[in-house]
Amino acid sequence: MLKIDRFYDARRELRKVLRHTSLIPAPMFSTNAEVYIKPENLQVTGSFKVRGAYYKISTLSAEEKSRGVVACSAGNHAQGVALGSQVNNIPAKIFVPSTAPISKVEATKRYGAQVVLIDGIYDDAYAAACEEVERSKAVFVHPFNDDDVIAGQGTIGLEILEEMSSVEAVVVPIGGGGLISGVAMAIKTLNPNCKVYGVQAAGAPSMAESFHNKAITASRTVKTFADGIAVKRPGDLTFQYCSKYLDDIVTVSDDEIATAIVMLMEGQKLIAEGAGATALAAIHFGKLPIKGKKVVALLSGGNIDVTILSRVVQRGLVTSGRSSELNLELLDRPGELTRVSSIISGLGANVVSVNHTRANASHDINACFLRIAMETRDFAHWEQIREAIQKAGYTVND
Amino acid sequence: MLKIDRFYDARRELRKVLRHTSLIPAPMFSTNAEVYIKPENLQVTGSFKVRGAYYKISTLSAEEKSRGVVACSAGNHAQGVALGSQVNNIPAKIFVPSTAPISKVEATKRYGAQVVLIDGIYDDAYAAACEEVERSKAVFVHPFNDDDVIAGQGTIGLEILEEMSSVEAVVVPIGGGGLISGVAMAIKTLNPNCKVYGVQAAGAPSMAESFHNKAITASRTVKTFADGIAVKRPGDLTFQYCSKYLDDIVTVSDDEIATAIVMLMEGQKLIAEGAGATALAAIHFGKLPIKGKKVVALLSGGNIDVTILSRVVQRGLVTSGRSSELNLELLDRPGELTRVSSIISGLGANVVSVNHTRANASHDINACFLRIAMETRDFAHWEQIREAIQKAGYTVND
Repeated sequence: MLKIDRFYDARRELRKVLRHTSLIPAPMFSTNAEVYIKPENLQVTGSFKVRGAYYKISTLSAEEKSRGVVACSAGNHAQGVALGSQVNNIPAKIFVPSTAPISKVEATKRYGAQVVLIDGIYDDAYAAACEEVERSKAVFVHPFNDDDVIAGQGTIGLEILEEMSSVEAVVVPIGGGGLISGVAMAIKTLNPNCKVYGVQAAGAPSMAESFHNKAITASRTVKTFADGIAVKRPGDLTFQYCSKYLDDIVTVSDDEIATAIVMLMEGQKLIAEGAGATALAAIHFGKLPIKGKKVVALLSGGNIDVTILSRVVQRGLVTSGRSSELNLELLDRPGELTRVSSIISGLGANVVSVNHTRANASHDINACFLRIAMETRDFAHWEQIREAIQKAGYTVND
Repeated sequence: MLKIDRFYDARRELRKVLRHTSLIPAPMFSTNAEVYIKPENLQVTGSFKVRGAYYKISTLSAEEKSRGVVACSAGNHAQGVALGSQVNNIPAKIFVPSTAPISKVEATKRYGAQVVLIDGIYDDAYAAACEEVERSKAVFVHPFNDDDVIAGQGTIGLEILEEMSSVEAVVVPIGGGGLISGVAMAIKTLNPNCKVYGVQAAGAPSMAESFHNKAITASRTVKTFADGIAVKRPGDLTFQYCSKYLDDIVTVSDDEIATAIVMLMEGQKLIAEGAGATALAAIHFGKLPIKGKKVVALLSGGNIDVTILSRVVQRGLVTSGRSSELNLELLDRPGELTRVSSIISGLGANVVSVNHTRANASHDINACFLRIAMETRDFAHWEQIREAIQKAGYTVND
């Protein structure tokens, strides 16, 4: 059974590779709680995963090390295992689904690991990794269901308590449950009064359901852009620890996650991946009983593809009313576009694009349509513009 | 004349509001130097500017404070002055050109300052601010040409030396020169062996030219997306300090800055604005004699509009060969698109979009054109794909 001294051992081992990630105040996420971010996106490899992977590898015997390690991951765990193997000078073979983004594959290769691309999804890569372990007798480094991995992730709990002993609640993203198992065990052992909450994506809620059902409950499908926590089934070890240590698990929607990512970019200048932003999304959207409390939200990682990021940003701007559209009818005569755009600029919105088309056969021969995309402050701002345009005599369509 | 004790006084005053920004290793920016980032984008208000503005305000007499302050800025200085005024509980009126992005205007208002939008560009807002000072006798807080402001910015130099006394070179962005004047004076006073280099945007090189000409040289026009350092004329104070303390000033192009912004996002999970990324761009593109040295690059701020950011990212991906295009001719018969796309995927690139059109009248009636946008690793990867497609018998156009 895992005990707290293993966390201290992990901490000592990890000194060789870890960056120190200091808490950052994040007042914008709550008006009635004091929120801080533990920025593990700034950790080496861009996520916390290096802690568990590196510690696991460091506990292997010389004989085990000589056999090398195998892992399976499309992202953060791959980079953690690759770095751990590089520093320990042992061979690593990592099975990656061919759908993984180029940037993550390249990052893993840069740490010197052998990457084997497997056609298909994560499960196909997992099967290939298992075959390889069978064949080569290399050591499999599980991404979450392993006490050494959990102890490694739990060093984050030690660091939070050390930097802010007065913390009253810690909020942690959950995929397979390795991170929160370690963090919760560390926190509850050293400061049992501090609450520990887990957050999952609504589209991949297996640990939340398992926790509330008090039995492991697998999801039949997972559907979220937060790929780092898109896990179908919790581990049996991590389920036990979550049942024992957590105060609650809540879920957040993909739109809530996207909004948190945009807030992190604009307000905190930090890049978060989907999984990484879930704890802050839960705080911002009031899912947790933390009023008046000093809260640490774990930002678990920042490995998001820039192309995906730009789609997320666009969506986050739309759902927060910052990027909006107006569709209106007007008469096809000089000066109409000027009149409409002066109303918009007078109210302080920026026009981003204008699409002006003549009407089709079913409309008045003089009618035309205007679709205007704008940067607005929020939904109320958009509403204000819509009303002003209607008041000026135009028909606004939905 | 400014002396080093004023920097320590600034440091003491600033304790009330500053966040501690620890150095972050940034190995990806150089293979032959040891690079660290001083991340002032993580500073409160999203940039270093709060240091000088807050300190300046804190030095005002009670009588001066009662008159309030006036400033003029489209960005970071506005937020610094607004926060400084809010904490000191004095009125602030900030003149902002109406072309400033909504997000920066909103951020300034959130700190409680009165924002006056002025039609036109920075110079128009500056003129309006001067009129206001004349009329109301409020205190004007200059963004750079002021010894108290310079002492405030210089606290960064103290922090760098304290955290890494073995630093051998410090690289700092230059706009008007307030930041580097303070940092260089602190560094050269306490550790004269440490080099201090300045970096400007090639499209706004007034201090670089002044430094090399040994006389203040104004730029007739400025043209760079790094708005935070788009300054036409250095201050006379800052020019003196730069002449005295700097080892050299170099420039970087907008494309080099864009590449550095993308590297910071992907590799460091940090958002930088254009001005903020210039020091890292200079290091990455080999503009400085820092081989074998321990170097700190100042990332001065992260207040970039997300809409601008997404354009910068797109440009950065193109100029680094990560987002690329192929234009080819093929015969309009079944299976051709499949054949081409299998060559591309076989070489590990992702197809992002495909534009397939029939030829126009001047071409063979069976010809058609294919424009393929791809995610590639780099230019060499694109070249490899282009050659494979040519080898398969297709004509690739430039």
